[in-house]
Amino acid sequence: MTNNQTSAIVKRAIDELSKEQSYKSVCHQKVQEHRMPSINSLAQIVNLAREIIFPGYFDDTAMNSNSIGYYIGVNTEKLYALLADQIMAGLCFECAGAEPMDETEVHKISHQLAAEFVAQLPEIRRILATDVEAAFLGDPAAKSRGEVIFCYPAIRAISNYRIANALVNIGVPLIPRIISEMAHSETGIDIHPKAVIGEYFSIDHGTGVVIGATSIIGKNVKLFQGVTLGAKSFPLDDDGNPIKGVPRHPIIEDDVVIYAQATILGRITVGANSVIGGNVWVTNSVTPNSKLVQFKPRDLLYSEGGGI
Amino acid sequence: MTNNQTSAIVKRAIDELSKEQSYKSVCHQKVQEHRMPSINSLAQIVNLAREIIFPGYFDDTAMNSNSIGYYIGVNTEKLYALLADQIMAGLCFECAGAEPMDETEVHKISHQLAAEFVAQLPEIRRILATDVEAAFLGDPAAKSRGEVIFCYPAIRAISNYRIANALVNIGVPLIPRIISEMAHSETGIDIHPKAVIGEYFSIDHGTGVVIGATSIIGKNVKLFQGVTLGAKSFPLDDDGNPIKGVPRHPIIEDDVVIYAQATILGRITVGANSVIGGNVWVTNSVTPNSKLVQFKPRDLLYSEGGGI
Amino acid sequence: MTNNQTSAIVKRAIDELSKEQSYKSVCHQKVQEHRMPSINSLAQIVNLAREIIFPGYFDDTAMNSNSIGYYIGVNTEKLYALLADQIMAGLCFECAGAEPMDETEVHKISHQLAAEFVAQLPEIRRILATDVEAAFLGDPAAKSRGEVIFCYPAIRAISNYRIANALVNIGVPLIPRIISEMAHSETGIDIHPKAVIGEYFSIDHGTGVVIGATSIIGKNVKLFQGVTLGAKSFPLDDDGNPIKGVPRHPIIEDDVVIYAQATILGRITVGANSVIGGNVWVTNSVTPNSKLVQFKPRDLLYSEGGGI
Amino acid sequence: MTNNQTSAIVKRAIDELSKEQSYKSVCHQKVQEHRMPSINSLAQIVNLAREIIFPGYFDDTAMNSNSIGYYIGVNTEKLYALLADQIMAGLCFECAGAEPMDETEVHKISHQLAAEFVAQLPEIRRILATDVEAAFLGDPAAKSRGEVIFCYPAIRAISNYRIANALVNIGVPLIPRIISEMAHSETGIDIHPKAVIGEYFSIDHGTGVVIGATSIIGKNVKLFQGVTLGAKSFPLDDDGNPIKGVPRHPIIEDDVVIYAQATILGRITVGANSVIGGNVWVTNSVTPNSKLVQFKPRDLLYSEGGGI
Amino acid sequence: MTNNQTSAIVKRAIDELSKEQSYKSVCHQKVQEHRMPSINSLAQIVNLAREIIFPGYFDDTAMNSNSIGYYIGVNTEKLYALLADQIMAGLCFECAGAEPMDETEVHKISHQLAAEFVAQLPEIRRILATDVEAAFLGDPAAKSRGEVIFCYPAIRAISNYRIANALVNIGVPLIPRIISEMAHSETGIDIHPKAVIGEYFSIDHGTGVVIGATSIIGKNVKLFQGVTLGAKSFPLDDDGNPIKGVPRHPIIEDDVVIYAQATILGRITVGANSVIGGNVWVTNSVTPNSKLVQFKPRDLLYSEGGGI
Amino acid sequence: MTNNQTSAIVKRAIDELSKEQSYKSVCHQKVQEHRMPSINSLAQIVNLAREIIFPGYFDDTAMNSNSIGYYIGVNTEKLYALLADQIMAGLCFECAGAEPMDETEVHKISHQLAAEFVAQLPEIRRILATDVEAAFLGDPAAKSRGEVIFCYPAIRAISNYRIANALVNIGVPLIPRIISEMAHSETGIDIHPKAVIGEYFSIDHGTGVVIGATSIIGKNVKLFQGVTLGAKSFPLDDDGNPIKGVPRHPIIEDDVVIYAQATILGRITVGANSVIGGNVWVTNSVTPNSKLVQFKPRDLLYSEGGGI
Repeated sequence: MTNNQTSAIVKRAIDELSKEQSYKSVCHQKVQEHRMPSINSLAQIVNLAREIIFPGYFDDTAMNSNSIGYYIGVNTEKLYALLADQIMAGLCFECAGAEPMDETEVHKISHQLAAEFVAQLPEIRRILATDVEAAFLGDPAAKSRGEVIFCYPAIRAISNYRIANALVNIGVPLIPRIISEMAHSETGIDIHPKAVIGEYFSIDHGTGVVIGATSIIGKNVKLFQGVTLGAKSFPLDDDGNPIKGVPRHPIIEDDVVIYAQATILGRITVGANSVIGGNVWVTNSVTPNSKLVQFKPRDLLYSEGGGI
Repeated sequence: MTNNQTSAIVKRAIDELSKEQSYKSVCHQKVQEHRMPSINSLAQIVNLAREIIFPGYFDDTAMNSNSIGYYIGVNTEKLYALLADQIMAGLCFECAGAEPMDETEVHKISHQLAAEFVAQLPEIRRILATDVEAAFLGDPAAKSRGEVIFCYPAIRAISNYRIANALVNIGVPLIPRIISEMAHSETGIDIHPKAVIGEYFSIDHGTGVVIGATSIIGKNVKLFQGVTLGAKSFPLDDDGNPIKGVPRHPIIEDDVVIYAQATILGRITVGANSVIGGNVWVTNSVTPNSKLVQFKPRDLLYSEGGGI
Repeated sequence: MTNNQTSAIVKRAIDELSKEQSYKSVCHQKVQEHRMPSINSLAQIVNLAREIIFPGYFDDTAMNSNSIGYYIGVNTEKLYALLADQIMAGLCFECAGAEPMDETEVHKISHQLAAEFVAQLPEIRRILATDVEAAFLGDPAAKSRGEVIFCYPAIRAISNYRIANALVNIGVPLIPRIISEMAHSETGIDIHPKAVIGEYFSIDHGTGVVIGATSIIGKNVKLFQGVTLGAKSFPLDDDGNPIKGVPRHPIIEDDVVIYAQATILGRITVGANSVIGGNVWVTNSVTPNSKLVQFKPRDLLYSEGGGI
Repeated sequence: MTNNQTSAIVKRAIDELSKEQSYKSVCHQKVQEHRMPSINSLAQIVNLAREIIFPGYFDDTAMNSNSIGYYIGVNTEKLYALLADQIMAGLCFECAGAEPMDETEVHKISHQLAAEFVAQLPEIRRILATDVEAAFLGDPAAKSRGEVIFCYPAIRAISNYRIANALVNIGVPLIPRIISEMAHSETGIDIHPKAVIGEYFSIDHGTGVVIGATSIIGKNVKLFQGVTLGAKSFPLDDDGNPIKGVPRHPIIEDDVVIYAQATILGRITVGANSVIGGNVWVTNSVTPNSKLVQFKPRDLLYSEGGGI
Repeated sequence: MTNNQTSAIVKRAIDELSKEQSYKSVCHQKVQEHRMPSINSLAQIVNLAREIIFPGYFDDTAMNSNSIGYYIGVNTEKLYALLADQIMAGLCFECAGAEPMDETEVHKISHQLAAEFVAQLPEIRRILATDVEAAFLGDPAAKSRGEVIFCYPAIRAISNYRIANALVNIGVPLIPRIISEMAHSETGIDIHPKAVIGEYFSIDHGTGVVIGATSIIGKNVKLFQGVTLGAKSFPLDDDGNPIKGVPRHPIIEDDVVIYAQATILGRITVGANSVIGGNVWVTNSVTPNSKLVQFKPRDLLYSEGGGI
Repeated sequence: MTNNQTSAIVKRAIDELSKEQSYKSVCHQKVQEHRMPSINSLAQIVNLAREIIFPGYFDDTAMNSNSIGYYIGVNTEKLYALLADQIMAGLCFECAGAEPMDETEVHKISHQLAAEFVAQLPEIRRILATDVEAAFLGDPAAKSRGEVIFCYPAIRAISNYRIANALVNIGVPLIPRIISEMAHSETGIDIHPKAVIGEYFSIDHGTGVVIGATSIIGKNVKLFQGVTLGAKSFPLDDDGNPIKGVPRHPIIEDDVVIYAQATILGRITVGANSVIGGNVWVTNSVTPNSKLVQFKPRDLLYSEGGGI
């Protein structure tokens, strides 16, 4: 193939890719001037929130009792400004293709929502402190609460969830989802921002945990890696589309422990104080104080099953 | 220990590590001048491909119908040049230790392969649009196709797979593997580039999914997190080395759904329209329209099993 | 809401967050001047270790037999200096709140520990070479040992483990844990630095693997994705706190293979040459040469279980 | 001094610096939300302009006759968007303290001005080509026009001037000044954007050249390093403030050469074809075809003047 | 030349360069562990100082009257910590080769000096406000004081000088010199930190200005580009080394204006209210109210001097 | 102006700028695949050279007598590889438009030239040590040789010159020029790489110094800021183009001092031991031991010359 031939191939592909019928179903038509939500800005927002909530752990400064107020002030002001911007981007993303919103109105709403979020930071800090406590008490390998805050991935995932959940509750679109996906990518823990989760919540190791959008989790619940709180098949409307907003994920009551890789599906209830063993498939409700484990494994000879 | 003592320890370690018998089995002897494949360049290549395929989502520009052609042109030209470089690096990596290839020849082949890949971008866009559609229809939590494209990790993993698979099909070594590992690291979804996967493919949540190299997946298949399409033990040759290239992973026919953590092993067939429940271990073929679930769990008392 | 109202909300939140009773339980009171451990520095340290151990793979230089000694010298000196700094940060993190340590003493200990670590690099290289060999022989999809070193996530996770384990063995606090979490985030593989793991160790795919702190693994063991070597409930002391340091994770003897998603819990022993099938829940010891698989799944009709 | 004492000193300084009477005269009160002009964005804008004007020199792409149109398209679109933003920032900077402007109006004006600037790029390219030609012909050390474009600082300074001058001419505030200061910092050449400069303009070496705001320079003029076209003392109004906008810098007619360090001050005329020698101080007009040089130096003995 | 030959050349050069007799006179023998002063940190320090002194101009934040105190607090704390580090580095640089200083002592002194500098920031702000005023009143092209602060290079150079001078006055070594060289590189203005300069000081354009270490400048002095306040030959001691610390630069009294490229050398006095024209060479004192200009230039014919 | 109107303006400009007749005279037609010289790489090369020549000053490592050899080895190997690349880029830049060179040949020549340069590093270090000595002895403000190496801009400019001159001498095109312009931009000192300059050369302050291509400077010469060693008008060939390569700049003999802003033009000789005062214009040779100063200035009354 000559240079000219490869050039011609590339040119042909560009022409093809630039045709409207090729790109129209997968192209985002931005409303004039609106920016997309920015992963970088959202990462900064989450970092600022963590610096505010857990002072002294995540910024490289010599904070002391004199200066802590300055740092919280600056970080909160920055978070507020960045978040208002991203909420605006989220609102605009949603309305792409629809009628453009009034510029001034969007601007005002975004700042109002950002302020409402900031107002919840003290409560987010309070409840995260209970999650830290639960992780510390539940893990014989943890040496101090500080170590839990500083390096446990589950605390990172739960922090993102509590931030995203607060945003969902005040009506911010899209942004909470991206914040929870950021934790998902980093930790392998996928908590939907709409899930409702009580105090003293802990996840151990965590990779592969999935908590669906309509899940309700009580206080002092502990999950291990690979646990799914998911949905079975869901009802369709007359056009065959899934009906949105129907409760379809489990309710986990207080003081439940669920071991690794257990899959709990559907709007069922796992009663308080139950222990669910690993690798089980649970699609029916479980009474309080149950101890559910997988049926015993079989021991094979090589001949049977062709070897594994 | 004095400074001199620590210096002496460090010096001794350096001497030891610099001995040929220490490093020879784990050292890469680059053929003169050849660069290693670069994760950074490959990340750029994948980002460019995503910008080309889904215009308006992933670059921060005010793209409009006037300018979309310029952007696709520039992004495609850049992708072409970067990809040719990386293909060259991949070819050279493979031949390390072997006879060096003819410089001009490698250069020409790399550009030809890069052009062949570019020629497939329109088709990759078409099939990814079906994957987006499947994810949107299958998830009651999804608000729009745009949200799916913009923030669903499975779309990211499937995009990397479809790119890597196109590269494998035209004979590019190593690079496809790195591209699929990049998605694996980011999403926890590990799809081998050699797997064959039909249209309207979707993965929900996705962490822990493994799809082996000789898997064949039909149209409209949906997998949940933690699903493995893997191999059982594989045949060895007379020297005890695994025989490469033998089909050893499952065939999944059209319209199958596989729930979380199911493990499907060996060259078996899961028949069309089947539903495989979570956490099952399947090593035998499954007839069409089956509904396979795990044997029921047992409820224990504390005394039995020593507590969990 | 007016600008003044949002400003007032933000100001109120800052005041609340700056109150000592709000932050005191989640704040890190640095001992004057001490820096926190730095993820960036630790990432550099791990990269340097990998460049030293596997020369020619991970730095972008035209290394040759003349120059390899210079590179190993510079990389080792840099690693030594950076590591001493991070060990110091780790020691200071631990003693936050306690009596401050003697500055000069901490400095001296840190450098001594860093030198002791450096002294182990040749042995770490030797054992990692066996792990590479095991991965290469055990994966029909691997084309060369170089490909395994260059792009297999499990090698990355095992490298971090072997580095972290060497640090744990000489008594370095905190830092090993962070190094293993870095691999966990990147690969989904969570190996506690205190686990004891023999030569020729391999993990395939790997996402979701968990290996607990008191696990003991023999030679030539192979794990697949999602395998847990975990603890059941653990003994509490009189105050209800978990008793630390008690052996609570499995012993896996030589030549064992454990398939995807298997959960092995408690201080039990899996005898040599055993094969554990996927998705099983094992809480009792297994004799050598066993082949354990999950109880057979059931095939449902739609009517039963309401569909999945 | 104890830690407490230094803390107290720092705290006292912060309190002092935070008092309104301390900062009010040197503080910029941003109109809510408005960003300051960004040096980074302006540097990007200038780079884009240079990439558009001199294709193939300043971006790292394999541009060819197929792809040049894509690159110019993308670069121009980006320049347009970034410039509109910066013009907006410039307009807002100017009105700080004054009544806020109508948001929508500022937005519209900024985009209109940015478009007007873009419309002048072809003419800017044409005239810069004459400047390149003049530099090439006038410097025996220049090997090619390409070398002049690629590495002569004077071309960089003149490019910034021609861009800034085009912006001034359409009424953009502040931004042109910053663009000319960027060149000043990089090259030591300080050309006021309001100066009027004809075709085939060249500056050799250039450090220290100053060209004042009301200077008028004809065609084919050449300046050497350190040449000043400046103002003498300027008229004051009744309040003792300088009267702005009065012509106060020289007129340099066609084909004039001015050697190093010459200082030409006031609204005088240097007639066509004149040569001004270095280090002279000229405050009166010079007739065409003059050759003006400094009065001859004196040769001293050590005794006189105490040695130099 | 073969690859082997070039390798041999490179190897030989390395060996030569690594010999002690080659490097000993140009090598810096760091006292164990001490870091060199860091240009990056010093740039950050200067930027922080400018953000503190001129709030709202140089950081990209939405500062308002609520938040300004937080920002000044954080910026001052950061400046204090960074500066203490750099002062320590400067002290260690000076003592390289000499007896090592007591670690704890150096640490304490550095923080004390940093606090003393911070204490002077309010006064530095006050005097810089007078310099801004002078630049604004003296330049008909300046539209506002804000424009002067935001983009006049002379303000940047004078800011660095006033910072460096404050550091010199409290006895900080080396660091002030580097800070003034940073401004020199950026603006072409070279003010020695030991020079003494009164209020309302302005420099127009500025490239090439040099103000020597023992210069004394009164109030309300204005310099143009290229002005030198320098030394003539200086006295040597018995060993032929220059005697350090002798006053050897000019005294410029209040209200003096010096035009472009004038060179004023030696410990002479330029009396109050004098105007020194451009390009003159002045080595004798000048009485107050003088107006000194260069002797008139000559007009040449081509024949004389061979053309210029 | 509507959005559509501004879009149309931008589109029209793009079309105009993309026409061949618009861009052809200012466009660089890269020979297929060749990269342009990279300022970033050249900056790295210069930094590496400085780290090699002055060990311990410019890299942030804890170099000691054990490790210095490793650092010099690595830095020299890196310099060699980067420089070979840049020489190749320079060769290709020169031949743009001409017949393409043989790929393998260019590659070989570039590496050979890079090796020849590396071979000169020991001599470059030796002569730079004399320049450092001259600067230290000649400046009463200098505290140590280390301070001169670490922060004197003239040493930076002279280092770049000595590097660039070594490259010129072995026949490397373009690259030396760029290296000298990098110093020019940073320091305001413009030394042509072809100038010939003896040992113990010093420049004080330096902004505005220009040393032309055919200048010859003896030993122990000192220049102050703003000194020009330039050319008068130069001979033209029959087509009116300047004749290249003719000696046209001054010869400065040993032990000469030239004060600020002096302009020395043409192929004249300034005899040994001469002192040239500031601001003089010299176009005729000067005998040894001369002391040349400007003719005395005049003192004006306000009435004459209208004030300055």
